[in-house]
Amino acid sequence: MSKDNKEELKNDTIKENQEEIKESETLTEEVLEDIVEDEVSELEEAQNTAKEFENKYLRVSAEMQNMQRRSNEERLTLVKYRSQDLAKKIIPSLDNLERALAVEGITEEVKKGLEMVQESLVSALKDEGIEEVPVTTFDHNFHMAVQTIPADDEHPADSIVQVFQKGYKLHERLLRPAMVVVAQA
Amino acid sequence: MSKDNKEELKNDTIKENQEEIKESETLTEEVLEDIVEDEVSELEEAQNTAKEFENKYLRVSAEMQNMQRRSNEERLTLVKYRSQDLAKKIIPSLDNLERALAVEGITEEVKKGLEMVQESLVSALKDEGIEEVPVTTFDHNFHMAVQTIPADDEHPADSIVQVFQKGYKLHERLLRPAMVVVAQA
Repeated sequence: MSKDNKEELKNDTIKENQEEIKESETLTEEVLEDIVEDEVSELEEAQNTAKEFENKYLRVSAEMQNMQRRSNEERLTLVKYRSQDLAKKIIPSLDNLERALAVEGITEEVKKGLEMVQESLVSALKDEGIEEVPVTTFDHNFHMAVQTIPADDEHPADSIVQVFQKGYKLHERLLRPAMVVVAQA
Repeated sequence: MSKDNKEELKNDTIKENQEEIKESETLTEEVLEDIVEDEVSELEEAQNTAKEFENKYLRVSAEMQNMQRRSNEERLTLVKYRSQDLAKKIIPSLDNLERALAVEGITEEVKKGLEMVQESLVSALKDEGIEEVPVTTFDHNFHMAVQTIPADDEHPADSIVQVFQKGYKLHERLLRPAMVVVAQA
């Protein structure tokens, strides 16, 4: 090999090497970009999934709290008004008792017996929150006017003159309105 | 510059370049490892977070379903036995009515009135699932033996000879046992 040839070869080698360096750098950059891109998209996906489940978790937790609140309220209402149905059905028995007590000529013994039944019924109902509707001034929420009379000095307007049938309420809830005669102006 | 010197320089350049390539490759590998390691740890973290929230979400969902089931069961029980308290308090009124009806010498009119009250009470209670405890054969779940008599041909063992006080139950739940006299072998 001539000296010139040798030199030429060396020059070529240097050039090749430099190209290789450049190529290697470019390749590295590309590979890096690809890898980073892949990793980022996988990371983003995982982060989105995490966010999604976090939102689902928070939504269900809030829903559960609402449900618990509603369920407690419902239970309280159920307990508060639990005696409503039976009470409504028992009220006519009280009416019957009052009619029986109004019968003329009953003996003292029978009267005592009837009053005892009446008292025990009224007391049982009262224990469960059921009471007579007060009959002082007319209130359309609790009274039904079955008759009116003109108001006078003794019976001012809206006063209740007579009660035909007692009304009953369970706590603030009306079970049956009182049937009344009202003075009207 | 001599030809030999020139050649030496070229040789050095080649060597340097080759070292640079090697160094560059090593560096690239290290950087890649670092980057990939970072991305993987971040990815793993995000994946763990996603898994964690998924588990939380699933747990809360299951909890909510359980809560809904329990709440429904509780409501059904509350509704089924809602009349229990009032019924228990009304039973003594039925006892009083029976005693009043047993009084000698009451007029037909009073008797009719008392029976009307009794019937309306019994019917109101029955509508709400409250009934007399049957008194055929002795059952310690529903009867209380206040007295025993020796069994004979007319009264076989475990038969109920007499009822001192009626018992009542709400659906299958006992409100008050019947007080009875039982024949014993």
